[in-house]
Amino acid sequence: MTTYVLVHGAWHTGTEFEPVAEAIRAEGHIVHCPTIAGNRPGESKDVGLNAAIASIVDYLSENDLSDVVLLGHSYGGMVITGVADRAADRIRRLVYWNAFVPNDGEALNDMVPPHYVALFDGVSAASADNTVMLPFPIWREAFINDADLALAERAFGVLNPHPYATFTDKIALSKNPAEMALPKSYLLCTEDCALPQSLGWHPRLSEKLGLFRLVAIPGSHELCFTDPKALAAGILKAGRD
Amino acid sequence: MTTYVLVHGAWHTGTEFEPVAEAIRAEGHIVHCPTIAGNRPGESKDVGLNAAIASIVDYLSENDLSDVVLLGHSYGGMVITGVADRAADRIRRLVYWNAFVPNDGEALNDMVPPHYVALFDGVSAASADNTVMLPFPIWREAFINDADLALAERAFGVLNPHPYATFTDKIALSKNPAEMALPKSYLLCTEDCALPQSLGWHPRLSEKLGLFRLVAIPGSHELCFTDPKALAAGILKAGRD
Amino acid sequence: MTTYVLVHGAWHTGTEFEPVAEAIRAEGHIVHCPTIAGNRPGESKDVGLNAAIASIVDYLSENDLSDVVLLGHSYGGMVITGVADRAADRIRRLVYWNAFVPNDGEALNDMVPPHYVALFDGVSAASADNTVMLPFPIWREAFINDADLALAERAFGVLNPHPYATFTDKIALSKNPAEMALPKSYLLCTEDCALPQSLGWHPRLSEKLGLFRLVAIPGSHELCFTDPKALAAGILKAGRD
Repeated sequence: MTTYVLVHGAWHTGTEFEPVAEAIRAEGHIVHCPTIAGNRPGESKDVGLNAAIASIVDYLSENDLSDVVLLGHSYGGMVITGVADRAADRIRRLVYWNAFVPNDGEALNDMVPPHYVALFDGVSAASADNTVMLPFPIWREAFINDADLALAERAFGVLNPHPYATFTDKIALSKNPAEMALPKSYLLCTEDCALPQSLGWHPRLSEKLGLFRLVAIPGSHELCFTDPKALAAGILKAGRD
Repeated sequence: MTTYVLVHGAWHTGTEFEPVAEAIRAEGHIVHCPTIAGNRPGESKDVGLNAAIASIVDYLSENDLSDVVLLGHSYGGMVITGVADRAADRIRRLVYWNAFVPNDGEALNDMVPPHYVALFDGVSAASADNTVMLPFPIWREAFINDADLALAERAFGVLNPHPYATFTDKIALSKNPAEMALPKSYLLCTEDCALPQSLGWHPRLSEKLGLFRLVAIPGSHELCFTDPKALAAGILKAGRD
Repeated sequence: MTTYVLVHGAWHTGTEFEPVAEAIRAEGHIVHCPTIAGNRPGESKDVGLNAAIASIVDYLSENDLSDVVLLGHSYGGMVITGVADRAADRIRRLVYWNAFVPNDGEALNDMVPPHYVALFDGVSAASADNTVMLPFPIWREAFINDADLALAERAFGVLNPHPYATFTDKIALSKNPAEMALPKSYLLCTEDCALPQSLGWHPRLSEKLGLFRLVAIPGSHELCFTDPKALAAGILKAGRD
């Protein structure tokens, strides 16, 4: 029995991981799906990367979790890297699911192509609270390309505006991921085009982990919506010892 | 119910798409498999890229087709890009199946490695009518690598000499594919080595589409012969809204 | 009915191919799993690349094998390339399974990243007999990433120290693989991270074969342990005419 903590990506909350969590629990494990500060319903969007990381460190502490397989999705990779730097003693293994892997001093925006930065800059400037949302066509074609239109629309409907400071803040780490002693896995959905595949997740970002385990499965960036059971199976292969 | 128009690649005719079309029709759709000018049995091989494109524009017009999902395979990507530029109002979505994606002023030969150009130059020069054929070993190993030998031979037997001018003519477009407002998908057969994968279809050519939906499935460049049902399933995922 | 000769990689013996061989034999073929000189139980580790190659040439000769589909795994790619140069008349097709492809004058170490060379240099210098072993964490995460821990440990237990000279010796070939007239296939396990995928097996090494057939299947570098039947199915697709 292993304790999994699944940390969602931008625009999501922990709730979207629940169908995945159910499938992992069915194999006898404990699964937590916290929501990062900045994405919690009704709370302030005035949240930077440091506070986002702290909210998950606090979650582990408040629930007294240890020996945790800590998974981060997309932007969640920023968060779990920070958590691993601050609370390594609670963690058994890190799992990056199509996730950003920052070195000390890097922001998420440093790892995305210029046209995304320009898009985010524009959208956040036009918002009342420095948040970003994805235009639906990008969501539908590049993020959830393996869904039908109805599911793409339904999933889009649950997204929440994301605090942009968490994309522009540079992470502060005492050591880079490759130097962290923790075991690490990279779970790759092979049809993910949320980043252009010429400037993609793997091997460009995964190899910043140093030694890591690759687990590759078919699917888009949003397999949590399109096939939660397949995602759960991938997580179990990535998360086991 | 959607209307699909499947545009074949070099050396092929629309007939080779019929088993794929049958599987798509079984899902309730209408499917057309026209043959491009230059590949029609008994007709002249004195056909350039402009005439090839015009023949599919004419097909749409003569059959009064609109709201069409227009798919192009390989060389067919040259053709559908030209059709999209001339008859965008008839098209609902473009689907490139391991297909060339030209910008204005590019020829197919501009996107293939030098040793293919040299091969095509030699074969066409030796022909009576400026046509090219593939040597069987290249066909068998790099195009239809997922077939057994009997199927590879049978499929090779239905190919027709291809008018080489359609490879060397530069396409004239009023705008490049990335600027076209139409939704676009790239359907990728992941074992396709018809182009060397270091200089391959995706992401090298796919990303010329700008925003596009990726759908990836196992198979070779010639999945229309080796698994028409799997290809049909991929087309439906690439072609839906 | 075809005769397959399966040539193992570093640290392995032919015995580890037996479950794969059984599945190929079940389809009516003859399969040999020789062990390369330097990996034979109880024999000297004072073996260089030339002697390793010669041991398989001798095996073909002593068993009077001809019309052979000769497969090499990983380091075994060095060996079968040398065998093909010396005994081409006995070979029907070469199959490289996530294997090194050397040109004349190249050593295996010329094709691996610097941190592996440094690791191997250190381990071999610390050994009594100029042999190398893999640290278990690298084996578990990067070589046999698709196994559970129990299988990873069990498989690690059957490995044998590998004569390092076979990694540092430069191969002598009368012609490079791309110029060899033999048909060639590359069988790719797509989750293989034994080499970093940014400096990986395919297309970086596969394309040194010139014209080749690609067959891609899911799995790690050690699919012989984790799914011998799937590997056998891949070998049959790669090995057929």
